[in-house]
Amino acid sequence: MPGSTHWRKQLTPLLCMLVFPAWAFSQSRPLKGKVTDRENNTPLAGVSIQIKGKPGGASSDAEGNYSINVSSTDTITASFVGYIAFTTAVKDLLTLDIVLSPSGNTMADVVVVGYGTQKKGDLTGSLSSVNSKDIKSLPVTNAGDAIQGRAAGVQILSSGAPGSNATIRVRGTGTINNSDPLLVIDGVPTDVPLNTISPDDIASIEILKDASASAIYGSRGANGVVLITTKRGVSGKSSLDFKSFYGVQKATSMIDMLNASQFASMHNEMMSANGQAQNPAFANPPSLGAGTNWQDLLFRSAPMQNYSMSYSGGGPKSTYYASGTVLDQQGIVINTNYKRYTLQFNHDSRPFDWLRFGNNLTLSHDIKKNGSYDIRNTLAALPTQAVFNPDGTYAGPVGQPSWVGDIANPIGKARLNSNTTAGYNVLGNVFAELTLFRDLKFKTTGGIQALFFDTRSWSPKYNWQPIPQPNSYLFQQYNKSITWLWDNYFTYERNFNGHRVTALAGTSAQTNRYDFMNGSVQKFASEATQQLNNGTTLPTVGGSGNEWALLSFIGRVNYAYKSKYLLTATVRRDGSSRFGDENKYGTFPSASAAWRISEEDFFKDISFVNDLKLRVGYGITGNQNIGNYSFASVLQTVQYNFNGTPVNAIVPQAIPNPGVRWEKVEQANIGVDASFLNSRVNVTLDAYLKNTRDMLVPMSVPISTGYSDIVVPSINLGKVQNRGVELAVNTKNITGEFEWSTSFNVSYNQNKILSLNDSVPLYTGSIGLNQNLSIQHPGGYPINEFYGFVTAGIFQNQKEVNGWAVQVPGADPYNRTSPGDIKFRDLNNDGKIDDNDRTFIGNPNPSFIFAMNNNFSYKGFDLSVFLQGIAGNDIYNANRIWQEGMAVAQNQTTAVLDRWTGEGTSNKMPRAVFNDPNKNTRVSDRFVEDGSYLRIKNVTLGYTLPRFIVQKAKMSSARVYISCQNLVTFTKYTGFDPEVPSNGIDLNVYPVTRTISAGINISF
Amino acid sequence: MPGSTHWRKQLTPLLCMLVFPAWAFSQSRPLKGKVTDRENNTPLAGVSIQIKGKPGGASSDAEGNYSINVSSTDTITASFVGYIAFTTAVKDLLTLDIVLSPSGNTMADVVVVGYGTQKKGDLTGSLSSVNSKDIKSLPVTNAGDAIQGRAAGVQILSSGAPGSNATIRVRGTGTINNSDPLLVIDGVPTDVPLNTISPDDIASIEILKDASASAIYGSRGANGVVLITTKRGVSGKSSLDFKSFYGVQKATSMIDMLNASQFASMHNEMMSANGQAQNPAFANPPSLGAGTNWQDLLFRSAPMQNYSMSYSGGGPKSTYYASGTVLDQQGIVINTNYKRYTLQFNHDSRPFDWLRFGNNLTLSHDIKKNGSYDIRNTLAALPTQAVFNPDGTYAGPVGQPSWVGDIANPIGKARLNSNTTAGYNVLGNVFAELTLFRDLKFKTTGGIQALFFDTRSWSPKYNWQPIPQPNSYLFQQYNKSITWLWDNYFTYERNFNGHRVTALAGTSAQTNRYDFMNGSVQKFASEATQQLNNGTTLPTVGGSGNEWALLSFIGRVNYAYKSKYLLTATVRRDGSSRFGDENKYGTFPSASAAWRISEEDFFKDISFVNDLKLRVGYGITGNQNIGNYSFASVLQTVQYNFNGTPVNAIVPQAIPNPGVRWEKVEQANIGVDASFLNSRVNVTLDAYLKNTRDMLVPMSVPISTGYSDIVVPSINLGKVQNRGVELAVNTKNITGEFEWSTSFNVSYNQNKILSLNDSVPLYTGSIGLNQNLSIQHPGGYPINEFYGFVTAGIFQNQKEVNGWAVQVPGADPYNRTSPGDIKFRDLNNDGKIDDNDRTFIGNPNPSFIFAMNNNFSYKGFDLSVFLQGIAGNDIYNANRIWQEGMAVAQNQTTAVLDRWTGEGTSNKMPRAVFNDPNKNTRVSDRFVEDGSYLRIKNVTLGYTLPRFIVQKAKMSSARVYISCQNLVTFTKYTGFDPEVPSNGIDLNVYPVTRTISAGINISF
Repeated sequence: MPGSTHWRKQLTPLLCMLVFPAWAFSQSRPLKGKVTDRENNTPLAGVSIQIKGKPGGASSDAEGNYSINVSSTDTITASFVGYIAFTTAVKDLLTLDIVLSPSGNTMADVVVVGYGTQKKGDLTGSLSSVNSKDIKSLPVTNAGDAIQGRAAGVQILSSGAPGSNATIRVRGTGTINNSDPLLVIDGVPTDVPLNTISPDDIASIEILKDASASAIYGSRGANGVVLITTKRGVSGKSSLDFKSFYGVQKATSMIDMLNASQFASMHNEMMSANGQAQNPAFANPPSLGAGTNWQDLLFRSAPMQNYSMSYSGGGPKSTYYASGTVLDQQGIVINTNYKRYTLQFNHDSRPFDWLRFGNNLTLSHDIKKNGSYDIRNTLAALPTQAVFNPDGTYAGPVGQPSWVGDIANPIGKARLNSNTTAGYNVLGNVFAELTLFRDLKFKTTGGIQALFFDTRSWSPKYNWQPIPQPNSYLFQQYNKSITWLWDNYFTYERNFNGHRVTALAGTSAQTNRYDFMNGSVQKFASEATQQLNNGTTLPTVGGSGNEWALLSFIGRVNYAYKSKYLLTATVRRDGSSRFGDENKYGTFPSASAAWRISEEDFFKDISFVNDLKLRVGYGITGNQNIGNYSFASVLQTVQYNFNGTPVNAIVPQAIPNPGVRWEKVEQANIGVDASFLNSRVNVTLDAYLKNTRDMLVPMSVPISTGYSDIVVPSINLGKVQNRGVELAVNTKNITGEFEWSTSFNVSYNQNKILSLNDSVPLYTGSIGLNQNLSIQHPGGYPINEFYGFVTAGIFQNQKEVNGWAVQVPGADPYNRTSPGDIKFRDLNNDGKIDDNDRTFIGNPNPSFIFAMNNNFSYKGFDLSVFLQGIAGNDIYNANRIWQEGMAVAQNQTTAVLDRWTGEGTSNKMPRAVFNDPNKNTRVSDRFVEDGSYLRIKNVTLGYTLPRFIVQKAKMSSARVYISCQNLVTFTKYTGFDPEVPSNGIDLNVYPVTRTISAGINISF
Repeated sequence: MPGSTHWRKQLTPLLCMLVFPAWAFSQSRPLKGKVTDRENNTPLAGVSIQIKGKPGGASSDAEGNYSINVSSTDTITASFVGYIAFTTAVKDLLTLDIVLSPSGNTMADVVVVGYGTQKKGDLTGSLSSVNSKDIKSLPVTNAGDAIQGRAAGVQILSSGAPGSNATIRVRGTGTINNSDPLLVIDGVPTDVPLNTISPDDIASIEILKDASASAIYGSRGANGVVLITTKRGVSGKSSLDFKSFYGVQKATSMIDMLNASQFASMHNEMMSANGQAQNPAFANPPSLGAGTNWQDLLFRSAPMQNYSMSYSGGGPKSTYYASGTVLDQQGIVINTNYKRYTLQFNHDSRPFDWLRFGNNLTLSHDIKKNGSYDIRNTLAALPTQAVFNPDGTYAGPVGQPSWVGDIANPIGKARLNSNTTAGYNVLGNVFAELTLFRDLKFKTTGGIQALFFDTRSWSPKYNWQPIPQPNSYLFQQYNKSITWLWDNYFTYERNFNGHRVTALAGTSAQTNRYDFMNGSVQKFASEATQQLNNGTTLPTVGGSGNEWALLSFIGRVNYAYKSKYLLTATVRRDGSSRFGDENKYGTFPSASAAWRISEEDFFKDISFVNDLKLRVGYGITGNQNIGNYSFASVLQTVQYNFNGTPVNAIVPQAIPNPGVRWEKVEQANIGVDASFLNSRVNVTLDAYLKNTRDMLVPMSVPISTGYSDIVVPSINLGKVQNRGVELAVNTKNITGEFEWSTSFNVSYNQNKILSLNDSVPLYTGSIGLNQNLSIQHPGGYPINEFYGFVTAGIFQNQKEVNGWAVQVPGADPYNRTSPGDIKFRDLNNDGKIDDNDRTFIGNPNPSFIFAMNNNFSYKGFDLSVFLQGIAGNDIYNANRIWQEGMAVAQNQTTAVLDRWTGEGTSNKMPRAVFNDPNKNTRVSDRFVEDGSYLRIKNVTLGYTLPRFIVQKAKMSSARVYISCQNLVTFTKYTGFDPEVPSNGIDLNVYPVTRTISAGINISF
């Protein structure tokens, strides 16, 4: 490291521990001490100790001890690759133990890339890496939630439902079809849910973002790749770890709903406005009081607990990691819960010089349970209705539905019905690496993934109003999905005269078969025997299977000249059973280059920049999640009536498209990695252009084919573009006894559909009441843009109605547009409001996603404060269609207290009117809200017990912490939580939770 | 070891290798060399080298090297515990490398017992141990077949069907109910089939035979216990092993059946004898020639292959064993095959002095496939019928069934139908052992066993005669069985003043839940889509589950005084969910003692006896395989017609017996272990008396309960006795460069039912044609004794018929007893032959089971010849009821060529007569045959390649071998093979195979 600068002096604090009292010496004498690593307290060997302005020096030995001859006027510097240098004046010290902090400069770190590892400094593509340290004390249950906000350009959408899996979007939504990234666990591409792996077993997560990084995964790399690496043993280090946390979850917010008397008033008004009779029970609204708060009854504070025990160790020839984890999570909705048991066994052996082999193995079992809860219906249930009848049975609305509503008791359904999914997973691989010659290695990997899961739904018989369940009912489904993988590849590595060439060539074969069978039966003579054998009537049985296979050829060449000029070229050729005969094989090339400017001679003098690298890359990747049989005629067995006799026939369910192939993504990336100020500031900046071509869109089928009533096949015709910029900054602000580091990332992404098959809008989402929620994809707008009417306030009087374009005409005053109704804009100025007046009214894709984490540590204490947010996106708050519709007998939010009740009373919230004659609840910008938010995502305060205490208990370390996830959320959004599914529709979404937890980590 | 005797001199050969040329020395000088083990070529440390008649001596160092000062006239002896001492004159040797052979005296060997291990010398109970070496080159696919004949008192009944599991009987059949021993794999009691484990992964198999050994398994120990221990890594030894064999299987014998012309003659005769018209097609029998040989078409030579790769190794703190095995076995019946894939991961770590932990894990997947083959029907199909019609479809009998038979084309059914069972198993445990104080340890073990298996049966639609299959049909069943185990126990071990006390106390909890669902559907519009979804009619669905749990308390104390007097007391208290409320817990105690007479001072002079031990033991064990819900009312949902309306009801399926409990076995054992002649001859002799009490037998239910048409409950009332003697002898006949060792065992067992619930015979087996095959169990006869008529030759003329007790009277000459029919004895002398003239006619339980193995080795060659047999048992050859019945249009064996065709032609084989008016085929001793056999069970010739060759290929050893299983069988039995199921009925049994194989074992 070059000498000090003005900046460095400001930031470099003293960092020393005085072990013995020291006194003055005037002449040359030895200074002794030990150098250790701050993070894990281990000795550091090979640390260079130098005296400023003098030649020579010393270095630490294997135990970290050093000795150097100094005089009292000297200043010494201890420096080591990957650590922040430490400088101090010797003065009268006799002994000086030095604790070095790792620098943020991770150019020497090794990261996992597809089919191998690389030094971070040698990367030419765009990759984000999340280390197990970053996620070690989060009260989260799966890896997806743990990486939220940790990687620039990666959006995570989680849910509070126990056992749910986060949705991951890398660099925007690349297709209207499956946009999930490929998940690779320990080198095996997999389709298991992230839940299968315990976060405690994860060593690192790498996200391959650009095509140059992900093209090695060819037809599966288009949506990015998430590489999960589990922990492995380390030679000579035995560690037995116990970790546990206990947390309590709550919804981040609740919806304010009307109480019984408020509801009754609103209801009376609603009925009158439509000329209907009022409910006599509501004659005196104030007498009804608060009534039933259904929402409070559905939600609860829910505990969650996690225990894990792991062992990591090994001898000179083999290492071992084994762990067991138990998670027990109750959901914040009653009768929802999740339990997971995982076992991990990882092993490596190098019995001979020429052979290295090992295995990874995960066994997991999870059980997810819930009743038939319905969050929207719970909000909608009338506060005027009781939960129980006087006889203890669940009450239901009895009477005229326009008075009492038509919602079956949501608490009864949530409690009595049961839906269970039990999963049993084996996920593993066995590998062997043979060194054939000095530079040539051969690696073979066999992978297996066996998933067994069964679902079971039980409904007892009940006769609640409005819709009794006349028969008890049991449905069961058994599922089996088995995947095999066999990878074989050669790697060749050679150094000569400053040139370094690494080449990889091989094949990968993977195949999956999924089978299921299901059955149901009704009318159980006794509800105590909930087994299919005991149902008495209406048996159904079903079952089928499907399979896919992939055969791939992989090649990659890395070339480096003096670590200055770096080139990477990869190619993958994938043959997939999913592709049509005309396109069985696809080739996915990429190339990228990097220039480490800071290694150039002319740069050596610029001492405040420690590292500067420029990267450019381009490549083509594919998305083969196009369905297993899109290329083929899918046949269906049907029965039809032929002259009164039922006849069986096989008919096509979809016309084949033998040309169907992968969706293609071309991506260009340019990036800069820089490290400043003694590696205390690290910046990564990337800009990308990502063009999706050949996106599958429904074919336009002429009616004359006779295929009009069957499934329309898809063709590779659509085009989408994502472009964006990502910035990640990591700084070590203060080092020393008090440490402060910050990591910050922000990403901007713009999503645009360039073309679809046709000019006809494409509907991809719909919600109840037979209204389509118009999510359309014409050229130029983002994917999943909301499509609907534009509002312009409230008609204050009949004159305004008459002066406006015709909305709902008619003679019947109760069935036409009236004062208090919403004005919709006549966009095409034809004087009437119809479907042609709809337009794009909201974009669910955020423009910005950002996060910032600050870590502080002082003596044994550590504190981390993690902020995270998104901006620029809209949410269609579909719950409000009913909960602010004031059109049927369902409960409403307190927002309707400000409803229009006469001229001038409101220009925002329309009148209450039964049956909604003006269709005020039609899809419009009325329910579109700003979805931006900023969260204090996590705050964790930890304390590491002093060594002398833990050693008495034979431990090697112990840490306790408290942590709060989703502590505060700043948002204008009025629903439960702005974290909703990626299509931006908030309907019946299980809310994200706030979790307060306390945990302990103990190592022996 | 004491000095030589006459006997020893005769048997002790020279065993030395001269590495350098030697010449004479006259005075004292050093003799140097290395001592190695003959079996695995490893150095032996601590071997004592002594000069005869001189004090002092030397011992070998860690590398096996020794050096001792000798003079040319000396005689030196090298001795080491567990090895045969080696003595030689020094003469002019300078260097002497000594190779010691392990002695047969295994008193120092450690064997696995329930919940721990013990030195063989310390055992007080009766236990047989089979080592992996004994079974290493057998071409067998499961552990059961591998141990056949290896343990005295253990009978193995195997089948040739691919993927079938051997039946194991320890010391006779203890109950008319489930007599299978408990299987314990790596300490976890389990109910997986033996197939789950690859024999290559097995380190040892111990069979606990008497109550003193098995009482530690309490209510599951009554039928004996089979303990399987898988291989583990060894510290500091890395070994990579590859094993493979390829074999070809054939039936051990075939049945000689009539050809077409012989059959036609017989058929004509049979029809005439009953006054029926002959088949015109058979008018000229010789013209029909040989016809179709159905048997040849069903059976084939079937290949089988097995590959395994394993690694065993470890460092100072941990060891590891991992292996993978693939078995691919074709069956000797067409369209039958079995494939198995197993992975084994075993690990042990001792990271800290106070902690040891590890895991065993087996993953296996197997697939068993077969068509609807029917061996009896294949024999029965008429040789006059062709396999195919001229149009290529399968032919069936067309015409009058009495002429052409009624058997659907057995080759077509075997080929077209498919039945598949796919299994996926995880079997494992994780354990930790903490040393709490110096003498006290605590061990906790968590075990899991997860079995998923699914079956699938498919029949295409076909319209062969005689019974067309009008609809294609698919049945599927998914099964899931999950078992958890949690064992916790303390062990305390203390030595003081010659006393040694070992105590164990703990608990064991185990629970299992089994669930299944199935469904079927018919009439597939296309037979190409064999999925439940595609069937069009008659869906059925079923499913249920059941569970059991066991909570146990275990205690054991071992006491030894100077290794002379040994006492063992064990007790287990088992609470089982299977027991009725009145008997929830059962206590199972045992006590045993041993006196090592050879350790007494007075015995020291008897030098030809190396070891002599007397053992006595007594204990009570239980059999809790009594069904999961015998104690409870089992309810059934039924539908009945109530005034024309179908009504559902729940009715009891069985009356409850709340007192139901385990079957109890009291067993006394007395045994002698002796080792003679320098431990070259080892003898174990045991005698036992095993009384089963409380055997479950059907309750007698008075008709008045109304329960007469439902399942009769069982009560604990029956009594059975087994008594027997077992002798096992192992000898090292010749040692040296040429070695010869022999092991021999013979067991005698007498089985007797002492009482049942009632005097009414109890039928436990039945075969077709509505005849019961009378297997009865009254007091005093063995279990499963055959019950029927006794024959007395053939009526040669009408006079003899008239002079005999009346068999089948009548006026119709075609429907009464006639000359040529069988005489049945009038046992009660009442002048008529009826059911009262039946008696016990055969015993399927062998009196003797025996085996003898001879191993020879010379230089690199090894040869083993293994004989095995049983004696004293009978087989009911039920195939012959039809195949020698000459009563219907089915093919017959060539034995009927000697049939009665007129006075004096035969007194053994009756006449051919359609419809069998005299019921010649009734259950009688006619079909009872002697089931004794002696087999050359296995001959294996192996060759271990010389070191200098294998080392060039970087191997550490390599061995090739050829092996033949079931080479020759000596028996009077006329069926395919005398190895039939344990009830002695040979009906449609898949024959045992003769397998010739070649294999290779390579170690790196």
